[in-house]
Amino acid sequence: MKFYEVIKSRRSIRSYKSDPIPENALQRIGEAVQLAPSACNLQPWKFRIVLNPELRAKICAVYSSEWLAEAPAIVVALGNRDECWKRLEGQPIIDMDIGIAMEHLVLAAAAEGLGTCWICAYDVARMNRALNIMAPWSVYAISPLGCANTEPTKLMRKPLDEVFMVMQ
Amino acid sequence: MKFYEVIKSRRSIRSYKSDPIPENALQRIGEAVQLAPSACNLQPWKFRIVLNPELRAKICAVYSSEWLAEAPAIVVALGNRDECWKRLEGQPIIDMDIGIAMEHLVLAAAAEGLGTCWICAYDVARMNRALNIMAPWSVYAISPLGCANTEPTKLMRKPLDEVFMVMQ
Repeated sequence: MKFYEVIKSRRSIRSYKSDPIPENALQRIGEAVQLAPSACNLQPWKFRIVLNPELRAKICAVYSSEWLAEAPAIVVALGNRDECWKRLEGQPIIDMDIGIAMEHLVLAAAAEGLGTCWICAYDVARMNRALNIMAPWSVYAISPLGCANTEPTKLMRKPLDEVFMVMQ
Repeated sequence: MKFYEVIKSRRSIRSYKSDPIPENALQRIGEAVQLAPSACNLQPWKFRIVLNPELRAKICAVYSSEWLAEAPAIVVALGNRDECWKRLEGQPIIDMDIGIAMEHLVLAAAAEGLGTCWICAYDVARMNRALNIMAPWSVYAISPLGCANTEPTKLMRKPLDEVFMVMQ
């Protein structure tokens, strides 16, 4: 798919078919994540694509939603706040690194005709316990992954000249 | 350009030609930023594309590098930590939001054949003062934008199976 088609077709999908995800699609999505830039190229992340039903049930016990449960896979984005670069003021840049790499995954999924939905609104300590993730690692975001069972909606966005300004 | 070609061709570019950036390229890059997802769709950002030489000089006085100075434009990614969604534990998600939207810009630039380079290693307080940015706004990242004056190098990355695991 062309780049701008991917950007325009990506949606946050909250209804899924149970169809399995083709292996070669997963491979290409993985390579898109692998190539993401990160501060000082430290790549302080691990992405797990959870197909296993017991593990998916554990995730859904912490973030409970029908549409997360119905997706054939759940993406878990793990970040390491000790391994990442720190800003000059000392703050770990892990959220920004994960934002970049996870969006590579989200866009690659869209290029494969697959749906995703960024999820961060869970109890982080409970999610880490449920998946046996120990500090300095933590679950920074999760997303369902699978075929959308819904029609694309219109994207609501701020006007372009409010968010993007060319200063001559 | 095709999506995966963009992902594979993107590089952090540290040498620029002075050629101006076509207006229609800037328009498409802006639309790619505008369509980026953000937590609760709050879009807590403003992207400035600084062509103005005096303003560029002010930025380069804070982050001093030859290659930033030679680029015909500097991108300034402003985020608002009060306007963004907060994690359940209370932490603003602004870094992740900016990571997503700025990477849309970086990839769109690559689709246009233009170079960028994520920069966060500057004194944030000084950068905000130089550009007259007041809290709750802040400069979360900057990047040069322009035609690369260098050949693409090989991307060095961790092995795929170390960063991307399918759990059956």
